[in-house]
Amino acid sequence: MDVFNTQKSEDLLARARDVIPGGIFGHYGTSTTRPGPKWFSRSEGAYFWDIDDNQYIDYMCAYGPMILGYNHPVIDEAARAQYDKGNTVSLASPIMVELAELIVETVDAADWALFGKNGGDSTSLAVRIARAATNRKKIVKIEEGYHGVAPWMMASMASADRDIKGITKEDGAHMLQIPWNDTQAFEQLISEHPDDIACFISSPYNHPAGRENSLPAEGYWSKIEGLCKQNGILLIVDDVRSGFRINLAGSNVSYGFTPDMVCFGKAIANGYPLSALVGHESLKKVASQVFYTGSHFFQAAPMAAAKATLLEMQKVDAANQMTEFGVKLNEGLVNIASQHGYELSATGIPAMPYYRLADVSFETHSKWIDECVMRGVYLLNYHNHFISTAHSEEDLTRTFDIVNEAFKALGDPAQYKVA
Amino acid sequence: MDVFNTQKSEDLLARARDVIPGGIFGHYGTSTTRPGPKWFSRSEGAYFWDIDDNQYIDYMCAYGPMILGYNHPVIDEAARAQYDKGNTVSLASPIMVELAELIVETVDAADWALFGKNGGDSTSLAVRIARAATNRKKIVKIEEGYHGVAPWMMASMASADRDIKGITKEDGAHMLQIPWNDTQAFEQLISEHPDDIACFISSPYNHPAGRENSLPAEGYWSKIEGLCKQNGILLIVDDVRSGFRINLAGSNVSYGFTPDMVCFGKAIANGYPLSALVGHESLKKVASQVFYTGSHFFQAAPMAAAKATLLEMQKVDAANQMTEFGVKLNEGLVNIASQHGYELSATGIPAMPYYRLADVSFETHSKWIDECVMRGVYLLNYHNHFISTAHSEEDLTRTFDIVNEAFKALGDPAQYKVA
Repeated sequence: MDVFNTQKSEDLLARARDVIPGGIFGHYGTSTTRPGPKWFSRSEGAYFWDIDDNQYIDYMCAYGPMILGYNHPVIDEAARAQYDKGNTVSLASPIMVELAELIVETVDAADWALFGKNGGDSTSLAVRIARAATNRKKIVKIEEGYHGVAPWMMASMASADRDIKGITKEDGAHMLQIPWNDTQAFEQLISEHPDDIACFISSPYNHPAGRENSLPAEGYWSKIEGLCKQNGILLIVDDVRSGFRINLAGSNVSYGFTPDMVCFGKAIANGYPLSALVGHESLKKVASQVFYTGSHFFQAAPMAAAKATLLEMQKVDAANQMTEFGVKLNEGLVNIASQHGYELSATGIPAMPYYRLADVSFETHSKWIDECVMRGVYLLNYHNHFISTAHSEEDLTRTFDIVNEAFKALGDPAQYKVA
Repeated sequence: MDVFNTQKSEDLLARARDVIPGGIFGHYGTSTTRPGPKWFSRSEGAYFWDIDDNQYIDYMCAYGPMILGYNHPVIDEAARAQYDKGNTVSLASPIMVELAELIVETVDAADWALFGKNGGDSTSLAVRIARAATNRKKIVKIEEGYHGVAPWMMASMASADRDIKGITKEDGAHMLQIPWNDTQAFEQLISEHPDDIACFISSPYNHPAGRENSLPAEGYWSKIEGLCKQNGILLIVDDVRSGFRINLAGSNVSYGFTPDMVCFGKAIANGYPLSALVGHESLKKVASQVFYTGSHFFQAAPMAAAKATLLEMQKVDAANQMTEFGVKLNEGLVNIASQHGYELSATGIPAMPYYRLADVSFETHSKWIDECVMRGVYLLNYHNHFISTAHSEEDLTRTFDIVNEAFKALGDPAQYKVA
């Protein structure tokens, strides 16, 4: 099995660097730091092809948006039919009402919905509504929790040895952070800031970048929910990344609690640009008083795509299908690793597995990822992965073959093991 | 000429209020405060139809994004061809490089480009890059200037009698404001905050909501440009609203100055969701160090649409075409108003006219707007309008007929005149 040639990707990256800072920016810029493909030429189902015409089984799914497979005929047709009628017009479209109604019907915590383009639109709007509703300023989040690039969020990423460029001290003035799965730390903060915490925002389980993912401890969410209710703190779930991959009704349903607001994005429209904030009836009035908008917030085609995506996910029991696939994928990869003398840790939920080779450096782990990528299994070294309903048994078999070759190329673990 | 029946719009709004805070939110929520249509059923060229099947000549153009006409075959085909290849994938598309190259070639101030979804993504990124590049914190903007819904921006909208919900005092800690066309006020601020101002951000001319628009005074921009250069302040033009309606190379070219960064959005892709920040070579490195991203930032179809839109605007000499139409529209409307004993003020650039009936209350002005809307000319009472290249001589004639009827319905100005 030859490794891929990705020279055209490298050449285009060099050309890109002339006209785009960094060549590729944002989270997609990660591809510029590793060998492997940088640019896609086409996509279909669970695959994409790079501009050197190499085919990849894609376990990143566009970092989440792709959930039913690329170029899904039903979703694309729904979007096209709406494009033919009209997309960005001076008025809103009835599809916005139909979509909001379907979300309220489908998502447990939703009595209403508001729409944006990116997950960060939803999380920032949620925080703003929480502050308006409570007349309080403090935001509590999980250390290393990521909720978009808004200033309140980015300020929390700064530390003694990490300067976040372009962010001021004041941007983080009201940000408080606690470790994941630590209800005592939350109680401590509440006692230190009585009647001053507007909201607690967190993903339903912890999926930080560059670190193994962690599920909620037994009783964690009911304890958090209780503390919020007792202290007038609004509970916001950031389900942007995990939404619809745990439970179509909201990840909180699987973990047995009910937040005041839930943020969705990514997978909600299978790759069409849409995000949604949903919430409880008691917040509807104040939500209508917070001014939040964007030129492209009222586009009808992504809403049509979202409606079709929600119905299709329901029809194919998407969350369970992806979970079953993810369990098999994890078991297979762990076994193959073991056959080559490596221990592979697979954390997080099965539909969004985070992989890390144990007892080796991050560099060695990254080398293994590269060996997979350069043979056609698209993985990322520092991030959780994403499963879609388009991933098949055949993909599983091919994935295992490729990963087996990757371990062969990596060679004897003895040379890498960290004491 | 009968006025339109918009009962279906009212009925759907009532249904929408059950599941969407306010029924329609953000800037589109304006439609809920006036009689007239709330929801579109389809769009084509310079027109949209509401769900009661009334046809409107649209002078809002989706608040700017529509510049070449709704459902433009060339733009839609470019987007569709890219959708067929792939849109939101785990890698970026070569179309991003092609678009950045075309922008750098077309836009005078552009040595590089970064992309987002909404204009607010561009303005917030510009401010962040300015702070990172200068190691300074203060932002200077024009009073009533609007640059999106980010906290730094919304904080500037608060006043003694206007509470902006969900925004904290700290969000506006580094915001300074000056009146439009007032270079002395800028000099004053510079002397009060030596070496502390990161940037000056402004639209190329002043187009506040609810107030007559104002062009730059003779020598204004060269004075501002000089002050910025002398004091190490980065000059950012927010061309999100006016971009491509004054000059394809950037509005600053028509006003004879060169900013460090220019923000584009709205019309850049004729209604597909894209925004762009462009800037000078000297800022490229720091721009690559500011982390700014979104799940949907790398979508290829809107970039293909933007490339097609830029080429089409160039081909049809769009800015001049819209300017010529706008001049005729303004002249005609002013004349018709005069024939009915009213004085109509038309301010701003011809391709984005702001209308206000003089010597009458805002309520009377709004009533006139309503009378136009309810007969098929879609205008807004508090906002500048937008011309597109799809607006024809035939539309002009029909617009004048309708506006004439609207003035007849409004009746004798004597009953409304404010002393």
